[in-house]
Amino acid sequence: MFLKAFIWGEKMNNLRLAKKKKEKTIVKVGNVEIGKDFVIMAGPCSVESEEQTITIAKYVKEAGANILRGGAFKPRTSPYSFQGLGLKGLKILAKARELTGLPIITEVIDPRDVQWVSEFVDILQIGARNMQNFSLLKEVGKVNKPVMLKRGMHSTIVEWLSCAEYILNEGNPNVILCERGIRSFETYTRNTLDISAVSVVKTLSHLPVIVDPSHATGRPELIPPMSLASVASGADGIMVEVHHKPEEALSDGAQALLPEEFNTLVKQVRNLVNCMKDINPYFVKERK
Amino acid sequence: MFLKAFIWGEKMNNLRLAKKKKEKTIVKVGNVEIGKDFVIMAGPCSVESEEQTITIAKYVKEAGANILRGGAFKPRTSPYSFQGLGLKGLKILAKARELTGLPIITEVIDPRDVQWVSEFVDILQIGARNMQNFSLLKEVGKVNKPVMLKRGMHSTIVEWLSCAEYILNEGNPNVILCERGIRSFETYTRNTLDISAVSVVKTLSHLPVIVDPSHATGRPELIPPMSLASVASGADGIMVEVHHKPEEALSDGAQALLPEEFNTLVKQVRNLVNCMKDINPYFVKERK
Amino acid sequence: MFLKAFIWGEKMNNLRLAKKKKEKTIVKVGNVEIGKDFVIMAGPCSVESEEQTITIAKYVKEAGANILRGGAFKPRTSPYSFQGLGLKGLKILAKARELTGLPIITEVIDPRDVQWVSEFVDILQIGARNMQNFSLLKEVGKVNKPVMLKRGMHSTIVEWLSCAEYILNEGNPNVILCERGIRSFETYTRNTLDISAVSVVKTLSHLPVIVDPSHATGRPELIPPMSLASVASGADGIMVEVHHKPEEALSDGAQALLPEEFNTLVKQVRNLVNCMKDINPYFVKERK
Amino acid sequence: MFLKAFIWGEKMNNLRLAKKKKEKTIVKVGNVEIGKDFVIMAGPCSVESEEQTITIAKYVKEAGANILRGGAFKPRTSPYSFQGLGLKGLKILAKARELTGLPIITEVIDPRDVQWVSEFVDILQIGARNMQNFSLLKEVGKVNKPVMLKRGMHSTIVEWLSCAEYILNEGNPNVILCERGIRSFETYTRNTLDISAVSVVKTLSHLPVIVDPSHATGRPELIPPMSLASVASGADGIMVEVHHKPEEALSDGAQALLPEEFNTLVKQVRNLVNCMKDINPYFVKERK
Repeated sequence: MFLKAFIWGEKMNNLRLAKKKKEKTIVKVGNVEIGKDFVIMAGPCSVESEEQTITIAKYVKEAGANILRGGAFKPRTSPYSFQGLGLKGLKILAKARELTGLPIITEVIDPRDVQWVSEFVDILQIGARNMQNFSLLKEVGKVNKPVMLKRGMHSTIVEWLSCAEYILNEGNPNVILCERGIRSFETYTRNTLDISAVSVVKTLSHLPVIVDPSHATGRPELIPPMSLASVASGADGIMVEVHHKPEEALSDGAQALLPEEFNTLVKQVRNLVNCMKDINPYFVKERK
Repeated sequence: MFLKAFIWGEKMNNLRLAKKKKEKTIVKVGNVEIGKDFVIMAGPCSVESEEQTITIAKYVKEAGANILRGGAFKPRTSPYSFQGLGLKGLKILAKARELTGLPIITEVIDPRDVQWVSEFVDILQIGARNMQNFSLLKEVGKVNKPVMLKRGMHSTIVEWLSCAEYILNEGNPNVILCERGIRSFETYTRNTLDISAVSVVKTLSHLPVIVDPSHATGRPELIPPMSLASVASGADGIMVEVHHKPEEALSDGAQALLPEEFNTLVKQVRNLVNCMKDINPYFVKERK
Repeated sequence: MFLKAFIWGEKMNNLRLAKKKKEKTIVKVGNVEIGKDFVIMAGPCSVESEEQTITIAKYVKEAGANILRGGAFKPRTSPYSFQGLGLKGLKILAKARELTGLPIITEVIDPRDVQWVSEFVDILQIGARNMQNFSLLKEVGKVNKPVMLKRGMHSTIVEWLSCAEYILNEGNPNVILCERGIRSFETYTRNTLDISAVSVVKTLSHLPVIVDPSHATGRPELIPPMSLASVASGADGIMVEVHHKPEEALSDGAQALLPEEFNTLVKQVRNLVNCMKDINPYFVKERK
Repeated sequence: MFLKAFIWGEKMNNLRLAKKKKEKTIVKVGNVEIGKDFVIMAGPCSVESEEQTITIAKYVKEAGANILRGGAFKPRTSPYSFQGLGLKGLKILAKARELTGLPIITEVIDPRDVQWVSEFVDILQIGARNMQNFSLLKEVGKVNKPVMLKRGMHSTIVEWLSCAEYILNEGNPNVILCERGIRSFETYTRNTLDISAVSVVKTLSHLPVIVDPSHATGRPELIPPMSLASVASGADGIMVEVHHKPEEALSDGAQALLPEEFNTLVKQVRNLVNCMKDINPYFVKERK
């Protein structure tokens, strides 16, 4: 009768490579060590133009971001929405990296693109909608670049870790997890940030975990408190959308921070990271 | 402040090809007209062997099924679970079709496989986990075979129709929708069958809609009442998993009907379809 | 580690009086036997005035309803919304009963009101928001009137049955369950009708179960297909909101059927009930 | 067609007394000012015996808690579970207050008990299952004691604030909100802590908001990181279950912290509260 529990138990046993071990995974990207240093990824939702991307890249670099984000391939609900600049977008990102020194992360959505896209970027991102796109997971498991795996908006934590297992099982050890909010009945926020998922991942796995408060809340005013909560929960970093002209953005402008807001946020986050240095949020042992 | 409503409204406007029009879409497959005749798709979750598939195919044919289902590519939560027989499975399905005359439907999970898989089968299925795999949707939009699009377990009805729009927009008019249960807090059933989604699709779109009570409930004892409820709600068909040795099945055996159970179910369903002939469940107009 | 499954298992063991037994519970109300005859409860959401309630009562009587519904105490999200007419409303309901012969059902929301309200009505209703108001459950367990217990919009089926257990345990055997939709991420419908809950209740318990498609969907055009689906799933009845002037209703007017729509619905439902007479939707046994 | 958004907009307009104003509400209890000082409420889930309650009360006092929690009336899923000691429990709590000086908070579940229970305790708690028990809300709105209103596990933030409005509207200005997790599809944790709800309340209302990580997670090892995340999000306090013999607890023992764990937690939390003194998590304005 206890159908789900059974299936779930079975799934836990399948976390062979993703489950907790002595050493935490540390993913080196440029001069950041994700899993050790607190990492701030920032940038526009979509790469819209060279001018837009480079302007924002300079802002976030100056504010103290470690990695530049920007989408060249956009999975959009509607076929009539902006689908991203593709190769042109990747070239713009590469130029932004050259100018700012920031490593770049971008989403890949098609298994046929994995190899060539991986040559342009420093981290490949698997988006929430593709979390269980197993063909894609297997492909990114074969390349020599770190992969950031977003949690599906409908996915349990154990399913999420099982998807990390797919990548690890293909031989790529550099997997970063990203909690970006789940679907619930609450409609005030775009999604519901499952902050406890950060903690669960910390207790079940050795993989670093990042929080994306921009997609989780969909509201700029909630991004700073949720970023700070992420730091305090023990997350290894945040990913934040920034745009200097949000009202003109081709996607998700409504949730972007302005550069000056992002600047203040980075200061707050770095302060809190320092405060947390001597606090170990994970001192209580799981009951048997 | 009303973030979601806004996004949702915007999405509704994007249903250009999927939205209701004068004529219902009728998808001809073999001698069944889906959208006009009530269609019963049945077969094993996975193609496991020639013997298994052909045995079940004969059972469901004799019981009165119209279409044979069977998975050759299986999207599994764990990389260590049975992943399907691939090409070998397709050949087995083709043989089963030859022997029984039943058209076949199978899931495709990789855009690189769409062209060649489509030559083996009569209907291509997009599974729930791939509902928003837009690369895959675009590929199945280009082939000359009907596509059955399952609703994502986390997806709103409007997002589901938007994914149908992706396929229609590539030029393939033969899209069949399939409600297979959504995720909720209820754990007694595998998923929660959203029977009202059948009705919503009927009022918003011209596309036929099938119900999969096997995945929706995960419990054999609930499949007959949910199949009958689907008929009464106005669904255009059902898809049911059948296995003669469920305890040996390589996937989802726990939810399969036995052949004799399926046999009785088909009789009940056909009786109810006849009863429903003169009842139009959609006589009340939407309020403005 | 399997926290929820454990708690759930424990809860199942607590269904001592509500769990399935040889005989189904049949609740006699007037000349209807709920659990044996298919029952149609109908009427306005709120009792607003004598004229309104009696007009609607006559309509639904003539159309073939068995029981008149109408709220005198309204649990409203806002303190500034219409809260019901209270005693005055009960007197109007009693008058409507006198004129039409229809037994009446009304919601009670305060344990202090249970005794005296029960003298006015034929069935006491516990609303979804009060499903786990245990003080109220204990009070209705002590009176000599049938109780209809709506499922909480957030409640698992086992929790719902546990609340029935509270009533049964106080000595009142006449409990009727009512599925009225649960909360999910879907926003197109007011709630998500969990039609499989009807089936689960049928397999776990001896209590009759009614479906409320009005609250489950919140949309008039979906009420007929969902009513028919309820019949086919094996439900023991439906409860439908009817209003002759929905645009003037003080609560939930948007989801009310017009009298002529209700009239057609009753005919369809009765036809389908006849069709279902020889079909047993519950012939498949639960696997061990 | 946009049903829910409409209802939701309507509800927002009903937040007359609860909505943001110039001054934050500060609730004085003993020598704590909730809304100004960070408050730590702690104690057993249930008052089980004098020895148990006083032992735990002394532990939490010494560790630095501000307020003692303990249930005398327990809303339990099953009628056969421990229902609380009632009056006897209140007397034990009163004794614990006398010995430790800690103000006490306890849940009230029946409108008939509100007056007399309020004479025993310093804060009345409305539990999640009773959030929309409007009779109860009206009663606690009439007494001269602060009320802590837990969010229903199924309730939107706006519905929660509307329930605060019910209390405020009866004349009681001392309302404290408490986020305790909502229901989602995730089963690893008992509930899903909606940490963004803290932030939303801070931007929509003047009321203080507390987080209950014990009920939100159901797992001791997650309580410290979620407590710290609550501090960083700007919450006004936490409520934590502590038990010196969790394996013997009559309710919710599995999620209780041990006294020494609670002791460390208080130190961590107070440290972080100090760190946060100069950080304003709410510096970004809502977009229009």
